[in-house]
Amino acid sequence: MAKKVSMQDVADKAGVSRTTVSYVINDIPGSNIPTETKERIWAVVKKLGYRSNAMARGLRGGKSHVLGFITDNIADTPFIVDIIKGAQDSAFAANKILLVMDAENSQENEARIFQMMDEWQVEGVIYATTLHREIATTPYYFYTPTILVDCFSSDQSLSSVVPDEVQGGYVATKTLINQGHHRIGFINGPVSSQAAIGRLKGYLRALDENGISFCPALIRNGNWWQETGYDFTLELMSQAESPTAIFCGNDWMAMGAYDALKKIGKSIPRDVAIIGFDNREMIAAHMHPALTTVALPYYEMGKQAMAHLLSGQNSGHPVHIALECPLVLRESV
Amino acid sequence: MAKKVSMQDVADKAGVSRTTVSYVINDIPGSNIPTETKERIWAVVKKLGYRSNAMARGLRGGKSHVLGFITDNIADTPFIVDIIKGAQDSAFAANKILLVMDAENSQENEARIFQMMDEWQVEGVIYATTLHREIATTPYYFYTPTILVDCFSSDQSLSSVVPDEVQGGYVATKTLINQGHHRIGFINGPVSSQAAIGRLKGYLRALDENGISFCPALIRNGNWWQETGYDFTLELMSQAESPTAIFCGNDWMAMGAYDALKKIGKSIPRDVAIIGFDNREMIAAHMHPALTTVALPYYEMGKQAMAHLLSGQNSGHPVHIALECPLVLRESV
Repeated sequence: MAKKVSMQDVADKAGVSRTTVSYVINDIPGSNIPTETKERIWAVVKKLGYRSNAMARGLRGGKSHVLGFITDNIADTPFIVDIIKGAQDSAFAANKILLVMDAENSQENEARIFQMMDEWQVEGVIYATTLHREIATTPYYFYTPTILVDCFSSDQSLSSVVPDEVQGGYVATKTLINQGHHRIGFINGPVSSQAAIGRLKGYLRALDENGISFCPALIRNGNWWQETGYDFTLELMSQAESPTAIFCGNDWMAMGAYDALKKIGKSIPRDVAIIGFDNREMIAAHMHPALTTVALPYYEMGKQAMAHLLSGQNSGHPVHIALECPLVLRESV
Repeated sequence: MAKKVSMQDVADKAGVSRTTVSYVINDIPGSNIPTETKERIWAVVKKLGYRSNAMARGLRGGKSHVLGFITDNIADTPFIVDIIKGAQDSAFAANKILLVMDAENSQENEARIFQMMDEWQVEGVIYATTLHREIATTPYYFYTPTILVDCFSSDQSLSSVVPDEVQGGYVATKTLINQGHHRIGFINGPVSSQAAIGRLKGYLRALDENGISFCPALIRNGNWWQETGYDFTLELMSQAESPTAIFCGNDWMAMGAYDALKKIGKSIPRDVAIIGFDNREMIAAHMHPALTTVALPYYEMGKQAMAHLLSGQNSGHPVHIALECPLVLRESV
């Protein structure tokens, strides 16, 4: 049997890079490749009889029953495992198998992994990040049907499933307002994070809707770690008009807030109510008192992304799904 | 090109199961297959020209540069990610790529995954469990060179890398003894767990070496959760001769012990010293006071297992490695 013609063969023959060939074959919008070059590439494709795996799949109508899951850095947060679990449960239910690979923050690894997934003819790929963020698309995202989880592409060319941070910030704040709180401290994440930006919007919307004026002195930007929760709680509590409730941007910082309040002899929720974010169940459910928090729907995100991939509708118009962050009521509010 | 002969083809022709063929081809000891059957299978292999991937690899001398990582249940504990990270760092350093698949506690999935890994011609497989335990081997563990992590096979036929629980229990107890403690409470894990069995041995050895008599009233078996740490600490502290130090079988139970001691107005470590186990850094390093604990060497386990696979020595005599659990000194002792 003759050696299978590769994309590199096409690139060599056409005198362009493999990336350019990929752009043209996968018809990626906005790549600005001159029509002349495109025509030359298609001529070579025809002449050499090149078939991309996607094309071959289409021709054969066969299915590999394998779905891919690619992470930017699997060891960054334990949350990624919940996304994997959700995706896997969807895949297993459809009698498909999930293949997980981690790029460890390297674009080179990422390109190689997407290429291997393509070679193994996976039916589709979930690309998930460990931080909710914007990503720039590269050609390899288009080798197979790909859906983004916990991230989104600036050009909206790929489907995505993300948490609704604004709604999450809103529900946390509204829960405190409903308990009669008006001076609500907010120890948010770093200013530039997608999560912090969205949650601040939600916080402001809840105040606004309830006629509570915004007081900048009640806002702090922590770094997600306990220590900043601890330090900023002491700071907020030492102010002339100290808050009666504190919204912490994650459960770690809420742990720090607990320790700070215990240190200054304040009782939760009698003296100060605390609400967290993330619902790291192993922590939140077991704190004293158990922490009321807002859950990040990681499992659901993985599950719905996979369901969308398996529905086969991903090849059409990209969809952008923002999933609700549900309130988890416990004892700290 | 003629269709490649599969193991199933051999099985059909020889009138036996695929498993039996696999046992014979991979020469798995203790499978009790009659010599007559073995000879019939080898005759079919020869006649059909069957080549297992392992054989083909040997003939070709080619390498896939892909290593497999199979877990019994990826979502069970966050620790598995550290094993993956260690394995991956070793693999990446050798310019290999790691492919992770999770069997989600299903033997059927597991068999299918091992088979796919074989089809994709991975160079070797790490099989890791989320709990340190003994496993029974099945034929598919032998499709490719496989090494076990955090588990071991009863017949010792596969190489394994596990934590040295006895040494870990010993170092925790010895650390408390060195600080002058003689009445050392021990809130261990469930009696039947490998971890609890090993750590109790280490605890007893340290007492014995230091001439401290064992007092069964100081031992409790928790369920790894905060609540049992909390409840058993209150129990131990209410005894006539209460402990001056408590060794908690994991950091969660140590968290519970902290809350219990704070509740009854005891200071750590002045009134009661606490030592944990696991070194869940995100918790232990940030508790008040920061928790002294014993680390489980998950990252190292993944790294060394992969190094052993890549060394090519795994095909020979199986090795059994028990890695040291190092002490992490902070402020609670």
